Amino acid sequence: MAAYLAANQTRFLDELMDWLRIPSVSADPKFHADVLRAADYLKARLEEAGVQNVEICPTAGNPIVYGEYLAAGPGAKTVLVYGHYDVQPADPYELWNSPPFEPVIKDEKIYARGACDDKGQVYMHVKAFEMMMRDGQGGVPCNIKFMFEGEEEIGSNNLEIFVKANKEKLKADVILISDTGILANDVPSIEVGLRGLSYHEVTVTGPNRDLHSGLYGGAVQNPINALCEMIASLHDENGHITIPGFYDNVDELSADERAEMAKAPFSEEDFKQSIGLPDSYGEKGYSSMERTSIRPTLDVNGIWGGYTGEGAKTVIASQAHAKISMRLVPHQTSAEITEKFKRHFESIAPQGVTVEVRPHHGGEPVVTPTNSIAYRAAADAMETTFGKRPVPTRGGGSIPIVAMFKSELGLDTVLLGFGLDSDAIHSPNEHFGVFNFLKGIETIPHFYRNYAAAQ
Amino acid sequence: MAAYLAANQTRFLDELMDWLRIPSVSADPKFHADVLRAADYLKARLEEAGVQNVEICPTAGNPIVYGEYLAAGPGAKTVLVYGHYDVQPADPYELWNSPPFEPVIKDEKIYARGACDDKGQVYMHVKAFEMMMRDGQGGVPCNIKFMFEGEEEIGSNNLEIFVKANKEKLKADVILISDTGILANDVPSIEVGLRGLSYHEVTVTGPNRDLHSGLYGGAVQNPINALCEMIASLHDENGHITIPGFYDNVDELSADERAEMAKAPFSEEDFKQSIGLPDSYGEKGYSSMERTSIRPTLDVNGIWGGYTGEGAKTVIASQAHAKISMRLVPHQTSAEITEKFKRHFESIAPQGVTVEVRPHHGGEPVVTPTNSIAYRAAADAMETTFGKRPVPTRGGGSIPIVAMFKSELGLDTVLLGFGLDSDAIHSPNEHFGVFNFLKGIETIPHFYRNYAAAQ
Repeated sequence: MAAYLAANQTRFLDELMDWLRIPSVSADPKFHADVLRAADYLKARLEEAGVQNVEICPTAGNPIVYGEYLAAGPGAKTVLVYGHYDVQPADPYELWNSPPFEPVIKDEKIYARGACDDKGQVYMHVKAFEMMMRDGQGGVPCNIKFMFEGEEEIGSNNLEIFVKANKEKLKADVILISDTGILANDVPSIEVGLRGLSYHEVTVTGPNRDLHSGLYGGAVQNPINALCEMIASLHDENGHITIPGFYDNVDELSADERAEMAKAPFSEEDFKQSIGLPDSYGEKGYSSMERTSIRPTLDVNGIWGGYTGEGAKTVIASQAHAKISMRLVPHQTSAEITEKFKRHFESIAPQGVTVEVRPHHGGEPVVTPTNSIAYRAAADAMETTFGKRPVPTRGGGSIPIVAMFKSELGLDTVLLGFGLDSDAIHSPNEHFGVFNFLKGIETIPHFYRNYAAAQ
Repeated sequence: MAAYLAANQTRFLDELMDWLRIPSVSADPKFHADVLRAADYLKARLEEAGVQNVEICPTAGNPIVYGEYLAAGPGAKTVLVYGHYDVQPADPYELWNSPPFEPVIKDEKIYARGACDDKGQVYMHVKAFEMMMRDGQGGVPCNIKFMFEGEEEIGSNNLEIFVKANKEKLKADVILISDTGILANDVPSIEVGLRGLSYHEVTVTGPNRDLHSGLYGGAVQNPINALCEMIASLHDENGHITIPGFYDNVDELSADERAEMAKAPFSEEDFKQSIGLPDSYGEKGYSSMERTSIRPTLDVNGIWGGYTGEGAKTVIASQAHAKISMRLVPHQTSAEITEKFKRHFESIAPQGVTVEVRPHHGGEPVVTPTNSIAYRAAADAMETTFGKRPVPTRGGGSIPIVAMFKSELGLDTVLLGFGLDSDAIHSPNEHFGVFNFLKGIETIPHFYRNYAAAQ
């Protein structure tokens, strides 16, 4: 295996970079043709690797690339691998040191939008499969189904429809996903908890047109000022969220559980340094690690209104807009929080403006079991390749489909990810370590073998 | 005069529309060549009308178009006419019913960026001069100097340098400006007070790069949330501005003065209806008319940060930005308020972010005398052409150069404007009534004749 990987790693990287050149941005309709090209590219590479019955399955949105390898036979275990080939928008482009869709390797890292999230991690699976097929080390020990979607970054709406319609085809024993990270290259870890998401676009409307701030200023409610007031009121002075009932269903961890968590290797100093800030900040009474994992949060992801060009324009805008999202923890639900946010935000509109709240997509928080044979197979695989037992962690991000797979297919998920928090996913200069990419390819076959052998 | 106007009004309108086709937006460098073309166009029309020694005077920025008519002789009075040929940016373009630089006449109004502010009003002066020269009604009764700048919408920085360097050339008895409005087409008025301006761009910086809101949300100060909090805190619950010392120098009007003001024809209902709002809003204890004239105000003119494209992006932005301006009243000064705003805004930055305040341009509030022969000449001229004595009003807008003319040239200004508040200057669908344009051309010669004849 090591020999095959060493002999082919340059080609593996070249193929990934070719794929990263296709700007498969799902959020922006102008990249639609590129999304389709990225799906075709993936299909071709899966077929070359030896995956069978590879199809581009149409949906109402972007297609799902599906393929399978069932040669282990009906008695063998089946793993359903999920990933996504769409990527986040790359703007602001001007902050990239090299263009987001012209991948380069610098300091042993691949820089490109999607390098880590999730094309790089999906491609580890394609190449791990190829390696099992060709390296003469015993082949593929279990059945594998691959399902890669193109709408993860915009809410996976059509994936759920696809899953509901194809329960027989997708039958498996466990889900395997590489779309998370490890604590550090010398501190392997496996995420066992994920936060949910409730995402909204809000519009505050005041006067029926943009007004001259000299002629009208002082006598009309300015929609931007109003929006700022409304947003400011969503947190109190302790960093708590003020939406009525927001914390009702939050799973509060016991002192013991928190003490256990605090043992994970996490350096507050390194955290602050990595983002260039003198102070961390957040909800009073919780550590940074807790704030990003076991506590729900609310952030403005974007805001715009009025004149934003060069120079000065003395205008009072007719409208102001923001994108506001909340990360949820067990046992909050996306539907519950969406409803509470919408009702509250509409109720706090000050005199003189009207407010519209448009929910985007949501996702449910999850905790995955650590006592399953699949989790142990993953932990053992990492221990083999990293030389250290991985730490179970609860992450702050959201992979909403994990909860959906549980409810629709009855399957638990193993989150065998190889990224790093510092990979700048969703940011300019996203990257993925060459070490991490290759370590993923090396580790995945061990997972299959451990899992196939386990009783 | 009426015959000449009637015979030529179609040509006057056509010429104005040709000028409006040139997008002389001073705030955006990409229109620089158009700004120069607009100056050339103005020079050519002034020369055709009979103005002498017309020059394009270079400055460090956009040129000043200067011309003069001194045939009335050294014993006659001299009027210095000021205006500006640059216009506000036209965005958001999508809200215009017809393109901003393709003027059309609809419902007896000229629709275009600059139709009223200030190309339309400048052009009234060009055509009023032509009419005096050619209509055989006694010619031009006094000396006139014309000075039209191209940087009014971006702070008139180079005008002040030009004025200081050309005091002899600009010697005059009074300044005449048409860059304001009347209360209604049947309620003529003359502005005798203007608010000042202090305009800033602020940047709030948090983490050293955009972050994933799932991985970091809750443990870093979000710059957009921080900016919203800071902006929200600039007003208290009564709509008062909370900047320390902000009201220190405000000229508080007496109860008698306020009672006098309240007699001006102003309908709260019409005001609300014109902007499509059920409620007016503003500082407690003051009427809408007072809020927009004798009281200082603070408005956010633009805000931006994070992801503002289609769909959802779960990002915590590294930076958030806003343009914030204050309208000032006598005896606040732009320098004083700029200093107070900057110090205060920087001081309220919450933990975890840094704040930069960049002052743009400022302008001083002014009150012009109503007991001068120039004011009376203007009031008499309006009474002749409108059939009604004009009301003196204090306006909410700012023409910062009025204070500068007073301090540098020692001259008072008469604000003989013909726009309407509803003209949507600085907004999409700016327009100028054909009635107002022609009424201006008709009124201006009466001003010169009244003023020349007065003792």
